Amino acid sequence: MTEIDIIERLRQKLPVFPRSGIVLGVGDDCAVFRPKSSPEDLLVTTDLLVEGIHFLPSTHLPEDVGHKAVARGLSDIAAMGGDPRFCLLSVALAPGMEGAWMGRFYRGALRLAGIHKLTIAGGDLAHAARFTCDVVVCGAVPRGEALTRSGARPGDSIYISGALGGSALGLESRSSAARNRHLRPEPRVALGRFLRRQVHASAAMDLSDGISLDLHRLSVASGVSAVIDHPLPSFPGASVEQVLHGGEDYELLFT
Amino acid sequence: MTEIDIIERLRQKLPVFPRSGIVLGVGDDCAVFRPKSSPEDLLVTTDLLVEGIHFLPSTHLPEDVGHKAVARGLSDIAAMGGDPRFCLLSVALAPGMEGAWMGRFYRGALRLAGIHKLTIAGGDLAHAARFTCDVVVCGAVPRGEALTRSGARPGDSIYISGALGGSALGLESRSSAARNRHLRPEPRVALGRFLRRQVHASAAMDLSDGISLDLHRLSVASGVSAVIDHPLPSFPGASVEQVLHGGEDYELLFT
Repeated sequence: MTEIDIIERLRQKLPVFPRSGIVLGVGDDCAVFRPKSSPEDLLVTTDLLVEGIHFLPSTHLPEDVGHKAVARGLSDIAAMGGDPRFCLLSVALAPGMEGAWMGRFYRGALRLAGIHKLTIAGGDLAHAARFTCDVVVCGAVPRGEALTRSGARPGDSIYISGALGGSALGLESRSSAARNRHLRPEPRVALGRFLRRQVHASAAMDLSDGISLDLHRLSVASGVSAVIDHPLPSFPGASVEQVLHGGEDYELLFT
Repeated sequence: MTEIDIIERLRQKLPVFPRSGIVLGVGDDCAVFRPKSSPEDLLVTTDLLVEGIHFLPSTHLPEDVGHKAVARGLSDIAAMGGDPRFCLLSVALAPGMEGAWMGRFYRGALRLAGIHKLTIAGGDLAHAARFTCDVVVCGAVPRGEALTRSGARPGDSIYISGALGGSALGLESRSSAARNRHLRPEPRVALGRFLRRQVHASAAMDLSDGISLDLHRLSVASGVSAVIDHPLPSFPGASVEQVLHGGEDYELLFT
């Protein structure tokens, strides 16, 4: 069973209780919570970062890991056009990480959070055999204005915010620009806000698993098909494979 | 460095940005977010559950693990007198857990969520060497009415909602009542709401690490000292050690 099957099977079973305040649940970049009588909706997203799966201690400095943990969540907020507000960091430390490593991890996380004026409001601390971290990021949009995956309509044009394949290239090569893109992805928060406010994009999502899979997801969510009739913007040096299927570019896909 | 030292050191470094909406950050059972112009505050808490640390596959059924993951978060909402609203579940599955195990884990989580009308609104799915799960639970209270750890005043009486040491006893023995308490803790959500609405408790928190440590935390947060001049309510069969230092009872401590 793939991740998509699991989520789809689960989603069908999940009741949305009327008092929950949830107006958009499982299946988009963030859940959308509507506070009583408020002019703003709250966007909530959560992302795991697991040692050995999402990063390697041999290639990622502790600061890179902290940066990436926060960047993944911020990218989801960007995808829905949100203003970052606060986050919670849950961290399970592996043996030997309690001292300097952890200090440097938090330094990387705090630096990126500070750039986006994201308050760290809580979290949990535990121990594990391997470092694992879960980051919850919350953002806000004016009521009803969150960009979603399901808004695309027949005839809409499809756009990508930047070059693809850089992160995948950076994982496999020593190219410093690509390497940096892999280690320190920059979430497109300002662009996401611009797409919501000025461009009035009909749909948006972030590219975390590669355009080949993510464009399919957006199409399915919107109930439309997609045609690629222009060359894709490629990161210099990236292979076709990396451009199409490379994950973690954290660019925005929008219509 | 202990967990308390780490959190304290970190807390001093964390800026709260004015636009974040956060009115209570790191250090209580939940963070408190105040949505613009809303009559309600949102409580947000996140808790890790790590295989080998918080549960053992040999003693916990998958349903118990799902139950416990959600119970930990609900107990934090109860501690602040909140109404549960929604949650997000991030799960890193270990090899071999993709099929039946996972189905049973979600069954346990969904059952407890259903009892408390807690909508599952999102999450993340990944893989890891050992099962790890992070649960974010959100609840609501009328604006400014969250019960906190810091509200106790000199002269307040100290109360505990039930017998202590049951979970620790259940971990070490085959006593079925204690065993059940360890495997399926019941978060005191209705009681927490009652304490906020009817009792107007001055301070509250949940007992997750044992009364010896948690009463100290409440005292420090409130800037008062505490005197225990009555026998503590003990779970039948629990040792003094288990009553004082046993964790995971998830009863409420309040003043």
